[in-house]
Amino acid sequence: MKGKFVTFEGGEGVGKTTQLRLVRQYLEEKGVDAIFLREPGGNDISEKIRNIILDISNSAMTGMCEAMLYSAARAQLTEEVIKPALQQGKLVVCDRFIDSTFAYQGIARGLGADKVDALNRMACGEVMPDLTIFLDLSPSLAFARKGGADSDDRLEQEGFDFHNKVYDGYQQAAKLYPDRIVKIDCSGDAISTHKKIVDILSKRGVV
Amino acid sequence: MKGKFVTFEGGEGVGKTTQLRLVRQYLEEKGVDAIFLREPGGNDISEKIRNIILDISNSAMTGMCEAMLYSAARAQLTEEVIKPALQQGKLVVCDRFIDSTFAYQGIARGLGADKVDALNRMACGEVMPDLTIFLDLSPSLAFARKGGADSDDRLEQEGFDFHNKVYDGYQQAAKLYPDRIVKIDCSGDAISTHKKIVDILSKRGVV
Repeated sequence: MKGKFVTFEGGEGVGKTTQLRLVRQYLEEKGVDAIFLREPGGNDISEKIRNIILDISNSAMTGMCEAMLYSAARAQLTEEVIKPALQQGKLVVCDRFIDSTFAYQGIARGLGADKVDALNRMACGEVMPDLTIFLDLSPSLAFARKGGADSDDRLEQEGFDFHNKVYDGYQQAAKLYPDRIVKIDCSGDAISTHKKIVDILSKRGVV
Repeated sequence: MKGKFVTFEGGEGVGKTTQLRLVRQYLEEKGVDAIFLREPGGNDISEKIRNIILDISNSAMTGMCEAMLYSAARAQLTEEVIKPALQQGKLVVCDRFIDSTFAYQGIARGLGADKVDALNRMACGEVMPDLTIFLDLSPSLAFARKGGADSDDRLEQEGFDFHNKVYDGYQQAAKLYPDRIVKIDCSGDAISTHKKIVDILSKRGVV
């Protein structure tokens, strides 16, 4: 693949949306040919799947159903959008990817790393991120900053224990893939976190 | 599990709907405590997934996305409906199950038997059919009888070559699982096919 593929990961309230906006501004100012995607979603079919996953009325959803829906949306996004963009030499920046499924379904929902790894491999094939920025902030600090969970998002409505497990899942993923996943301490303000991210993008030859 | 789990499989136009109706009548007359399900579907979440899979506007869907959506619906149906019913000693009759994914996505879409087997095992866990009735009729005979494909069903709208591959996929599944899958020649009329099915249900101790 000629292009680079960078993913952003982290729990609720760590400031991922803000950081993605700042990175987007930075890349646009530099004139980088980049596309910005979010998971689950990024194309018609995956957005329809997203609606089922996040619908608050689907509270009976099993962990395996949830993991497979994320994987289905990812398979479609990878084949329809990410792979063609990388082949054209574009930079692809994605808000969440395989590590979210590892942390949320594999660890926090307890499906296990093996099953989720198998799903991730089936969904992506050879299209793996070149670099993953993990926004590292404990759930207690993150929710304090955010002011509580969104009432219309099924995943955010999970309890504090769940989000601690997600955080633990991300730490496990970072240990498993130390070359790909870079932890960014984001306990400081947004601008200082942004500077750390730009520094990593530069060091890794992304921009 | 105390109950028995029977699945019905076959390509488009083989008379599956008619045979399921006749079996249902037969079981109700005998007073058997049975539930009847269809795949994808059988519960709120899986029906929503079904709508995405069969929507004719989703023509860009990749084979892997499709297989994962079927598997997600199956995981939910298995955990929420099938497993509890079997634990209560009920007979569960399901219109399509794992062999559909094997034939349609594994063989006809070309994903490969290994990947589909892995998805099937993840979706069902230990809940496997005790008996699978494969309604065996060549696609040329089936579509002639049916009078063409439904215009509002994305899967039926696939070409003749696709449905021949599905048929081949079912034959491969029947060879792989000869104890579980019973082939029923349904080139005759509906009543003679029904009699063959009742005969197998009786021989296998289902009723």
